[in-house]
Amino acid sequence: MKLYSYWRSTTSFRVRAALNIKDIPHEIVPVNLVEGEQRAAPYLALNPIGGVPTLVLDDGTVLTQSMAILDWLDAAGFLPRLMPEDPIARARVLGAAFVIACDIHPVNNLKVLNYLKERLGHSQDEAVAWMRHWMHEGFTAFNELIEPGARFCFNDEAPDVADLCLAGQMINARRWGLDLAPFPRLVEIDERLRKIPAIAQAMPEAQPDAM
Amino acid sequence: MKLYSYWRSTTSFRVRAALNIKDIPHEIVPVNLVEGEQRAAPYLALNPIGGVPTLVLDDGTVLTQSMAILDWLDAAGFLPRLMPEDPIARARVLGAAFVIACDIHPVNNLKVLNYLKERLGHSQDEAVAWMRHWMHEGFTAFNELIEPGARFCFNDEAPDVADLCLAGQMINARRWGLDLAPFPRLVEIDERLRKIPAIAQAMPEAQPDAM
Repeated sequence: MKLYSYWRSTTSFRVRAALNIKDIPHEIVPVNLVEGEQRAAPYLALNPIGGVPTLVLDDGTVLTQSMAILDWLDAAGFLPRLMPEDPIARARVLGAAFVIACDIHPVNNLKVLNYLKERLGHSQDEAVAWMRHWMHEGFTAFNELIEPGARFCFNDEAPDVADLCLAGQMINARRWGLDLAPFPRLVEIDERLRKIPAIAQAMPEAQPDAM
Repeated sequence: MKLYSYWRSTTSFRVRAALNIKDIPHEIVPVNLVEGEQRAAPYLALNPIGGVPTLVLDDGTVLTQSMAILDWLDAAGFLPRLMPEDPIARARVLGAAFVIACDIHPVNNLKVLNYLKERLGHSQDEAVAWMRHWMHEGFTAFNELIEPGARFCFNDEAPDVADLCLAGQMINARRWGLDLAPFPRLVEIDERLRKIPAIAQAMPEAQPDAM
């Protein structure tokens, strides 16, 4: 498999971590979002929205959207599972994960920030305030939705997709200086997650395109 | 079941249509987003991000996030399925659905538009241009990701979650005057979808809280 990925992309991170946890051999193909490689014709032919990640299977099948790829990795039988088998437990994990995947991340995406700055004339400070606003609001809800008292977001044994979404979003929270004081449990879970080698190896600084 | 829903919410629409297609008895509980009912304490206790829809099962279990609820409705065995059983086919349907659920909808959410207008001082015209931009970009990609030549987005027989996301987003596209000329296939699929009684009954104008 080939994973098209950008080192600082938190959606790429989710899939990198899942591939590592499931011990699936793969090649990382860097896509430089800052230089606009995601909008070049060869990449758009793979991923028409021009985002990362994209997973290309050995038979050439192309899968896009991190949450669809995570779903596929479980559906295709790669172990360990990252979503519970029980439908209600699964719905709760996904309900929390989508707070990050839908309510936080898309609104803070690079292309959205570029629109704010380039087309609407906002400063970097205003863009950072925007990002912090959605992270604060989303983390507040996420914190309510996860299982009280568990070592990870929902269980004591191993991370699931809610944990991968959290660990990814925490990369951006630290990068953009979100005040994490209101979220001690999220900080604690994130520290636990970053000690897992499969997750540490998915972090931005461990990527071949890290700068 | 009780579905907390707002008539014009396209994420509520997705779940209303799924409940109708699966013929699941349910009560619609309107949440008036314009009057801020989603930020009142009783509703936040159910859905801490303050969004719609929320599905409350007869035993009191609370499910949030439209894409997690759609996933649960299939996982729990309600028929007909709205996602293919084959993992690759499922990943392709979800990959398209998430272009709408992640790349378009969250960026055009009421709370994001309110931030643009109230905190950043943008006009309604600038907010509408913003919405049209993300819809145009997302529909362009969605159109590339769906199955060429099928009657619906991916098959000839029946709608799936990509179709429900499309029909919901088309409500907003028409409301905000997106130029649909570049998307004749999406218009055609949407017309076909709106003729299905279960989908027609999920439309905003058929809701108890329609104004």
